[in-house]
Formats: sequence, structure tokens, C-alpha cells
Amino acid sequence: MLHEDRLFPLENKARDLARALYTTVRDLPIISPHGHTDPRWYAENEAFPDPAQLFVTPDHYVFRMLCSQGIPLESLGVPRIDGGPTETDGRKIWRLFAENYHLFRATPSRLWLDHSFEHVFGLTERLSARTADMYYDHIADCLAKPEFRPRALYERFNIEAISTTESALDELKWHEMLRQSGWKGKVVTAYRPDSVVDPEFEGFAANIERFGELAGTDATTWDGYLEAHRNRRAFFKGYGATSSDHGHATARTEDLPKADAAALFAKALKGDCTPQEADAFRGHMLTEMARMSLDDGLVLQIHPGSYRNHSAEVMARHGRDKGFDIPTRTDYVRALKPLLDAVGMRKELTVIAFTLDETSYSRELAPLAGAYPALKLGPAWWFFDSTEGMRRYRETTTETAGFYNTVGFNDDTRAFCSIPARHDVSRRVDCAYLATLVADGRLAEDEAHEVAHDLAYRLVKEAYRL
Amino acid sequence: MLHEDRLFPLENKARDLARALYTTVRDLPIISPHGHTDPRWYAENEAFPDPAQLFVTPDHYVFRMLCSQGIPLESLGVPRIDGGPTETDGRKIWRLFAENYHLFRATPSRLWLDHSFEHVFGLTERLSARTADMYYDHIADCLAKPEFRPRALYERFNIEAISTTESALDELKWHEMLRQSGWKGKVVTAYRPDSVVDPEFEGFAANIERFGELAGTDATTWDGYLEAHRNRRAFFKGYGATSSDHGHATARTEDLPKADAAALFAKALKGDCTPQEADAFRGHMLTEMARMSLDDGLVLQIHPGSYRNHSAEVMARHGRDKGFDIPTRTDYVRALKPLLDAVGMRKELTVIAFTLDETSYSRELAPLAGAYPALKLGPAWWFFDSTEGMRRYRETTTETAGFYNTVGFNDDTRAFCSIPARHDVSRRVDCAYLATLVADGRLAEDEAHEVAHDLAYRLVKEAYRL
Amino acid sequence: MLHEDRLFPLENKARDLARALYTTVRDLPIISPHGHTDPRWYAENEAFPDPAQLFVTPDHYVFRMLCSQGIPLESLGVPRIDGGPTETDGRKIWRLFAENYHLFRATPSRLWLDHSFEHVFGLTERLSARTADMYYDHIADCLAKPEFRPRALYERFNIEAISTTESALDELKWHEMLRQSGWKGKVVTAYRPDSVVDPEFEGFAANIERFGELAGTDATTWDGYLEAHRNRRAFFKGYGATSSDHGHATARTEDLPKADAAALFAKALKGDCTPQEADAFRGHMLTEMARMSLDDGLVLQIHPGSYRNHSAEVMARHGRDKGFDIPTRTDYVRALKPLLDAVGMRKELTVIAFTLDETSYSRELAPLAGAYPALKLGPAWWFFDSTEGMRRYRETTTETAGFYNTVGFNDDTRAFCSIPARHDVSRRVDCAYLATLVADGRLAEDEAHEVAHDLAYRLVKEAYRL
Repeated sequence: MLHEDRLFPLENKARDLARALYTTVRDLPIISPHGHTDPRWYAENEAFPDPAQLFVTPDHYVFRMLCSQGIPLESLGVPRIDGGPTETDGRKIWRLFAENYHLFRATPSRLWLDHSFEHVFGLTERLSARTADMYYDHIADCLAKPEFRPRALYERFNIEAISTTESALDELKWHEMLRQSGWKGKVVTAYRPDSVVDPEFEGFAANIERFGELAGTDATTWDGYLEAHRNRRAFFKGYGATSSDHGHATARTEDLPKADAAALFAKALKGDCTPQEADAFRGHMLTEMARMSLDDGLVLQIHPGSYRNHSAEVMARHGRDKGFDIPTRTDYVRALKPLLDAVGMRKELTVIAFTLDETSYSRELAPLAGAYPALKLGPAWWFFDSTEGMRRYRETTTETAGFYNTVGFNDDTRAFCSIPARHDVSRRVDCAYLATLVADGRLAEDEAHEVAHDLAYRLVKEAYRL
Repeated sequence: MLHEDRLFPLENKARDLARALYTTVRDLPIISPHGHTDPRWYAENEAFPDPAQLFVTPDHYVFRMLCSQGIPLESLGVPRIDGGPTETDGRKIWRLFAENYHLFRATPSRLWLDHSFEHVFGLTERLSARTADMYYDHIADCLAKPEFRPRALYERFNIEAISTTESALDELKWHEMLRQSGWKGKVVTAYRPDSVVDPEFEGFAANIERFGELAGTDATTWDGYLEAHRNRRAFFKGYGATSSDHGHATARTEDLPKADAAALFAKALKGDCTPQEADAFRGHMLTEMARMSLDDGLVLQIHPGSYRNHSAEVMARHGRDKGFDIPTRTDYVRALKPLLDAVGMRKELTVIAFTLDETSYSRELAPLAGAYPALKLGPAWWFFDSTEGMRRYRETTTETAGFYNTVGFNDDTRAFCSIPARHDVSRRVDCAYLATLVADGRLAEDEAHEVAHDLAYRLVKEAYRL
Repeated sequence: MLHEDRLFPLENKARDLARALYTTVRDLPIISPHGHTDPRWYAENEAFPDPAQLFVTPDHYVFRMLCSQGIPLESLGVPRIDGGPTETDGRKIWRLFAENYHLFRATPSRLWLDHSFEHVFGLTERLSARTADMYYDHIADCLAKPEFRPRALYERFNIEAISTTESALDELKWHEMLRQSGWKGKVVTAYRPDSVVDPEFEGFAANIERFGELAGTDATTWDGYLEAHRNRRAFFKGYGATSSDHGHATARTEDLPKADAAALFAKALKGDCTPQEADAFRGHMLTEMARMSLDDGLVLQIHPGSYRNHSAEVMARHGRDKGFDIPTRTDYVRALKPLLDAVGMRKELTVIAFTLDETSYSRELAPLAGAYPALKLGPAWWFFDSTEGMRRYRETTTETAGFYNTVGFNDDTRAFCSIPARHDVSRRVDCAYLATLVADGRLAEDEAHEVAHDLAYRLVKEAYRL
């Protein structure tokens, strides 16, 4: 199913060179510094459930595409908030998926799925209505075997380190269980404090209450609140965390005087913030987090620009994260200035900015990352985590920011089997880009070899301190 | 004049494959679901006037480029509002055009013109000052012959169906004459209600008066007004309409409570709307139209984002639509939410969104069309209805929306002879794109053949129900 | 070090054609109509100082990239405002640069530097820690020779004409000295009135005072102020100026009634303008400048969209223009309308608009330049003055604006040795683009040859009247 030279340039010399470069990075270990796999998988090491539960029901790339063509989410097993009926027969879900597999033509999902089918499960005929049952049976058989359990796959995928993401309110019990288990895999957590940083988060005041309990401080005062963050960050570091992660609607940052920040926090606790004040508070907390990073060394990740849960109907029926997060135009130049004025020139700090607005690559993010020592540019993300998206990322950032203000690849996924596929796509696209640069005289061949290794392995390892 | 392999990839294997794909779609009938040819042409079937009247004076792509280099619109025969003198000698206009034909190098106009000259008129030497008279005489001779009359060309162009666009206030007399004629060509109308939906349209109140007369209702009440739309839509459907078309300045939609909408309508009738209220009313009417579409099956087309008639001087001297419509930055994420919340999950509805802001393809429109069942993505439009524009359209939408949330090609033209040329460009660019996907391993060859047919024929036929 | 066919297409036929086109334009004289070389160089014709002072310390492309990786600007010899210590040993600076030369991989700086090293200094081994001293010694030796003095290099670079840029308050003494010298080189000035047009400029009122003295008018009245501009423009024309240059934060223009403009000017003189009023005044002055251009024939250049001196810390420590100017989203459609309504249809006027926001090329600037006779589109600028940037410029503007609403290339540099390198990149990228158009049938070969010459030489010469 998979073309040996996929994603490589078409011209022979560049293709040969891309292949040569790829050969040297293909088997490097995977470092996955930002993602959403479930730590419970590694902790319990149970078998994955049926093929539909592995590939369809949890993957919003997959079910949103089916939904866009009129297939109800219920028929794909996506749970309803009201507990109403949804399809539970994995085989029926799988057949529906297989009958509509043509919808994924030329999408990254298709590349990832085919890669998983072929590399993880040894399937070599294309998925279709005709092969649906054969696929289902074969994958189900595999999943029952020990070598398809999470830890075995982790090892087979050649993962050197992987980060999960947990709420600041999480007790990290799976990470604790994992540690106790003695297994050698390196599964670390990341500190995601949205629920205690965003005044508009459901149950903010109660969250702060709980936050203080977990941290052993009175988190309802400004000083106590900051102390609680410090404590929780240290707790997360104890489970390997090397980064914090922040998914705000915009890239806005603020650096408010202490009294103003404390006053906003007090209003937030009372639920009295206007939307503008809530936004200012979130923005200020990014700068506070950056200051804490100067002390504790956590890398600060900013993931802005998504209009979350765009469909009121889908949100009401199925809840958050159902494929209806839509990118919006995002400003970085004015938004990041307060944070950058506060800490942007500190080379010991690493702030990694991502974007869902491609237009900011060449215009804003590459110029910023190409100037401020603290700022690095995260990889092509989400809808751009694709062949064309990755190619455009390199073409629009490299000339201004170079390679060395970027940080390798993030798979950012909860689809476990797609991890090697995604890293493979990234490595191929980067090698194709480098080969093109060599072929038209913009980079020397020996340099391309060094850069290929940097992009596949060294930069991510160093940037995330993994 | 025309390169046999034009617009195909340069690399040999991809080029061969592009040619093979193109061969299978080259001769498929043309479905033109959205355009501005004059129904009178088909109804009366008179000879087209002189070459300048056919190729220069009515084509704003052509005369705006000449204007941009300092050639007065008057000298190209573009009428003046004050009735002042303009060039009437077709041969003089033609010579001016021919002398400046180099201005069109590497533009889509050049591709379309050369295609028309060679395929429609059999001319094989390039247009220039030297060949101007030869061209003029030859085309003029052709136009006098029966086989160059509109119906003959329609048949020769292998058009299966074509849509014109008429105002909601149009009596469709040419369509009626056409029907009476017994000619077999399929020329349908489309419902364009801007003059009775936009409170800022010249003569809005009088338009509503006339609208009610035509519809046989009292259109000055809110209920009567909606009823008038329903009646006129049904009337248009009687002349083959399968779509409505809406050209607003922005993509704004609203879904107002009935009382609010009725109140805005009453203000609009009195001419009391503020610009904000007029905008809200237009936005609300898109949602009303979508609701009517659920009943009568018309496809809803939204064409936003043009700053119309940008030059005050050209508007004052020559009026609307003189090549000075300039694209602007356009938001879709917030703008379309009210309509999508109202009807976006209804798979029996088809809303087709177009854009003149390329940046919205990957960031907004592909993610929206790749999630909502009702939303489809219209083709590259207007300034992007070009080789590079179409290529970027596929490269920035396919990975997120796939092929099957797109709807084939629209020529959107009033330049009759350019219709086969434009569809040819579209088919070539799509085949080139598909061939590249196959060549670098992102699509299987059998799939590419199926998709090529889908993009050239099936998707447009199905989406527009033609 | 330099690949003979660098930047050409990879496919053989297109590459051969690109090379053939390039061969015909490679040796054409350089016309550099917009730049920031120092007129003193040509006037005094002294030797350039050491290699670090030539290549590192004055080049913000170079030192911002080093800074972004944590290398302090002080260690690169960038002066401090407080006079604090900075590195003064050229060899130490050079070594630091050489050790970090890998940071420039695949950036335009690398292409320019390698070109300078090889073509100007005859170096053929790559710069690195190992070769740093050899480079330093060799370049230093060269700089001591007469054939490396500014005038000799000007001649060796085959420059036909070059423009510097001077403030409206400059007395042009170096230009005067140059004139007296009898040297045949054509070094002209350009009129840059930001300090007397921007009410927010440091010392605006004092600047106006001085402006009046220089112009021999009372510049504190509105009429006197305009008269002063006319006089200074004439003075600059006396030193060869054919253009004015305006670097505003946005592209805003206004065309205010005289009384309003005069009132704003009076407020500006008193320091009473709000930021909005200051912006309106700047915008109005662009239209005044355009009206003066109708009289005196100077070309009006608009360079908007940069957030200047983004880092408060760098601004405080090192001052302006230290690599922290960051592009922002820029609107042209509404912004330019007042100016275009006033003078946009005047074909005897040339207004050249530049952008740092690539998204405006296809959406706004190409449609505007493809309609208004007065408006031309400046080349890819600053961060886009690069292989990919230039390629995207052609791909996104040509189909709408054609070639003939563009104005060739600007190097816009103060890095003297990079001038031939930059023009070489521009010529190669344009030839590569043209070759691709020919190879895939969008342009005839004879036309490509003509256009190649136009883009490299004729258009810039004509647009800038040089």
C-alpha cells in the first residue's frame, strides 16, 4: 500500500538524495515531547479494545470527516452527553468507516492509517467495503496478542521518550503506577493549568480550591496561588515533566503590575471578570509561567488560535473536542510583546509558540523567533501536521528563522498507532525539503545530513530537555 | 500557440500520468452551474457582434489590465454613464488590444484567449500588432457564419447544462422565450435576490414593492416578504433554477428572533437602517434563505469578500463592474457560525462558500467544510480562477476537507468563448495535482482516475443537482 | 562554494532554459533604485574597515540571527546607547560569527555571504571555525588594496546607478562632495521626509523649524510647510533624486480638506496630536506627496507594515534598527483608497507599494496594481527578499497584475558587498520562474527572453526614471 519513495521529490537526483538522507534518520528513536496518549495505557498495559475503538471513535480527524459527509457521530460510536444511544457494535462502525474510506484520499489521515495498517498490522491490501471484515478480524486478532499491548508497541515503535499532558488538578496516579511498575519506558507528564488559569473555565473557583488542597497552600490569595503553581510544577517535574502547555484562544500576553494581577485574580475567584478581564488574566499568567520557567526550567508551550467547539449543536449533543475546533486569524506581534519584553531576551528560557494560522509563519513568527533568544517556533500543528503543511512550514520559516530556532516535530496525538506514521511523514518531508535545497544549490550535502539528524532528533531532545 | 502538455508537471512520469488522467476527462461534457452569460443569446440566437465586442469591451479582466497601464477605458469602448464619447470602431479597439497583448503574459486571460483563438476560431499565430487585422477579419468572418451563433457554440463546446444568474425581480422573459423555442440546450436560471435583500441597494423600498407584485403577495410585511421569496424561488425553479446566489461584502450571517428580523425589515423599508443594521439584516437573510433551501432544495451560494467599485472616479464615469472590485480580508469562522448553528448539521442542505481571501482556505474554510455536513467549499474564484490559484486551492484544502467536500469547477463568466478554455484549465490543473499525488505516493493510480472524473464532472453535477 | 545552477528548476529542460535565460541577463548592469549604502563611502572612497565591520556589525540580518541563539549583541560589536563596553576586536567578532555560521543554513544571508566571499574575495572554502582566521586575514588584506575601495567595487559590481536614502533634513554634503569629485559613478539620493511628516517622530517641532531654515520658508504654516517640501524635493532632485520614500507603520492614506489638514499640522507642531490624529496626518501627507509628484515627477514609494523596534530591552540598550522590526498584518484596500481616489487614475504618476505581509500580494496588491494606472507593485522586500519569497511574489502577483505592473528589483541594503549577490538571486529566481512557465506551456520562449530582460533591467530603469 505504501510507496517506498512517498513524499520525496519527483526529480531523480533530488529523490535519490532525499532517500539517502531519509535512510540515515528513518530508524532514529522517536521523541514525542507533546501529545495526548493516555498514561493509563502504559500503566495498566491492557489490550486495546476493538479496531473501531482504536482507529475511529477516538480520532477526531477521522470522525469529523465522516460527519462532514452526513454520517451521524452516533453511528460512529461517539458518546452522547445525554447518554442517548450510540452504535456500540465495533464491526458496524468499522464497516461504515471502510465504506467511506475514499473520503480520506490525499489527507494525512489516510497516510497515517495506511502506515499503521501496513507497518503495525501487516495489512497490504487497501481498506474498502470489500476488505472491511478481513481488516476487522485481523486487527482484532492482533490486539488480543501480547505484542500489541501498549508497552510492547511503545518499544516496537522505538520511542525514546513520550510526554502525556495532564491537568494541573490531576493527581498523576497513572504516572505513579507506571513508576512503581519498574517498566523502562520513558513516559513523562506535562503541566497543563488551563482549568486554574482561565477565569472562564467551568468551575474556576472550585478548581482553585482543589488546586490549593493539592498544592498544600491557600490558593485563594495571589501569593498563595502563585505558590501553588510552583508546588504543582515541582510535583509534575517529579514525574518527568519538562514542559507546561497552554491552549488559549489568542496569543495575548500581559505583564501586569502585581496589584493589578492580584485584583484580577480576586475578581476571577468571585466570578466577576468581564471577558476582557478574563482574557487579560490569562495573558498575564503566561508571563508568570514564563517567570517560573526561568526558575524551574520547564519549557513553556503556547498553542493559540483555535475557536473551540464551534458547533453549538455538536457541543450540546457530544461535548468538547469533537472535531469542531476551527482555526482563526491570530496575531503574535502585539500579543507576545508583553511576555517578550519581560523575558524574551533570556537565553536560558525556552518559549515555544505554535500556530494554526499559516499566514503568521513568514510574517510574524519566523521574524520573532529569528530575533528573540527565548522564543522558538513549534512545528506545523494540527491541520498543518501534513505533507503540504510541513512543506509550507519549512518554506516560509527557514529563510528567516533558520533551522535552529525550530524544535523538531510534535505528533500531538492520542492515536497511538499513528505516532510512528506521523514521525515518518515528518522525516520524509524534511528530507525532501533538504534534498531540494541541495539539488538547487542552497545547501551543501554534508550540511543537509547534519540538519536531517538535527530535525529528526537533536533539536527536539535539546529544546524539550528530554 | 497552445502547448499540448500545458500546465502538466515537468517531471516525466508525473507528466505522463497527468496526460493519461486528462485524456479521460478532456471530453466530458461541461457543467457550468454558476455564470453570467446572457440568456438572451441562447433565446434569440443572433450572431455575436464584432471581435472587440466579443473579447475586449465586456471582459473586465481584459480592460482593467489595459487600464492599469494607462489606456483609457473610453478608448476600449467601455460606455460612459454620462453618455460621453467612447470608441465605437471595433477595429481600432482591437488594434489597441493587440498592440498591448504582451501585458497579458502569464495571466489566465492569456490562456483563455489563446485557447479561444485557436480552438474556436482556428487561429494559430500569436496575436500582436502585426497580426491584429488578420485576427479581426478572420474572427469577424467567423461570427457571420451560423456555426458561430450562440446555440451552435453551446453544442460545439459540449455544454451539458449552464446556469445564468437573474435578479429576483427579473421576469425571466429570455428563459421563457428559450423554453418556447424547443431548443434542447439546458440553460437554467439562478435566484439572485441582492436587490431585495440588501437594505442599502439602490431603490430598496421600490424593489420590495415590485417584488410583491411579481410574487403576488404583500411583500411589505415580514411574513409577506418571506412568502414572496418562496414564491419567486418556486418561479425560478420553474425555469430550471437549482441554486440561489448571494454576493455580500462579508460572510456575516445572523439568526435573529422573528420579531427582531421583522423590526429590521420595517426599518429597512423606511430607509432607516444604520449600516450595522443593514449588515445584520443581510446576514439574517442568508439564514432565511438556507431555511427555504431546506424546503425547496435550492443550493445556497455565498460569494463574499469583494470591495465593490473601489475607484470613485471609475464608478462615477463608467459605473459598476468595471474591474475595480478588490478582494478584502474575510472572516468565516465567526461570520458563518449563526447560519451553521441553525442549519449546518443538516445533510440534505448544501451551502457553498467561496472566497477571494486565499488565506482562509487552509485556516478556516477547509476545517469548516471538513466538519459541517451542510457546508461545501466552492472552487477557486475570480482572481484565483487561474493555474496557480487552482493549484494552491487544492494544496491548501485537500488535506483537511478532502476532495468530497468540494464541488468541481465554476467558470463564473460572461465571456462565452472562454468557457471551454476555463474548464480545460481546471481539468488540466486538477489532473496535474492528482498526478503529482500519485507520483510521490500519496494516492493510488486507480483512485486518481476516479477522482479526476469526480472533479471534472460528478461532484458539480451532484452538488448543484443539475 | 557556489553551485553553478543554483536556484534553477530541477527538471532538466526547465533548468536548461533557466540557464539560457540567465546567461542573457547575468551581466546586465545593476540598477539599484532604493537602498541604504552610505554616500560617504563613494565620496571619500576610503578603505572599508575590518571584515567584522564589513560583514557582521552593521548587518541586522546577520546579528539578529546570532542574537536569536543567545549571542549578546555586545559581543558582536553592536554599540550600546549608554556607551557601555562592546567587543572591539574584529577578529574575535569574526570568530564568533564563523563558529556559528551553520545558523545561516538555507537563509538568504548565507547565499549573499557565500557569493560575496567567492565573487568579491575569491574565497572558495566554506566559512567555519576552522577557516575563520584564514578568512579574516584574507579579507583584511584585500580591504587594504585600492581595488577594494568603494568606487572600485562600484565599478566592478557593474552598477549603472544606485540610490542612497537621505532625510529631508540632510544637507547632502556627501553627495555634494561626490559631485565635486568628478567621479563618473551615478549615485543619487532619495527624499525621505519621515522626520518632518510624522508628528510622533522625536523632535518633530524642532525638525520643522530646521526644515524651514533649510528650505528658506516659514515651515510652521501649512502653506509654508508644503512649500518647504517642494523646495527640498527640488534640492534633492538637484542631487539626482528620482523618488521619495515613506516608511509608515500602516498603509493608511487620507485626502483631507485643506482646513482639516492645516489644523492637524498646527496640533502636530504643538505636540497635541492624539495617536489617531498623528496617523491621519501621516496618511494625508502621502497624498500631498503624490500631488507633488505629479508636478515634479518623483516616484512615491510606500513601505508600510513594520512594527519597529519591537523589543523594549534592545531599543533601550542598542537603539533603533537592530533586527527587531517585525512585520504585521497590513490592509491596503481601504488604506490606499483616499490616495487612489485622489490620484490613482493618473498614468503620469508612479506610486510603488511594498509589503511585508505576503497575504496581501494576491488578495489586495495585485488586484489594485492590476487596475489603477498610477500604482505599481514593489518587489519582494526585506524578509521576503529571498529565494522562496521572490518565487511566491511572482506566483501570487503575476496572474493578476502581470509583469508590467511590477518594477524589477530593489536590494534595499546597506551591505555593499551583498548588492551583486542580491541582484544575482533575483535574476536567477526570475529566470527560474520564467523557465517553468515556458516548460509547462504558459509562456512562449521568445517572450520569456524579453521578460527576463524587462525584469532585470528595463522595468526598474523606467519605473524609477533612472
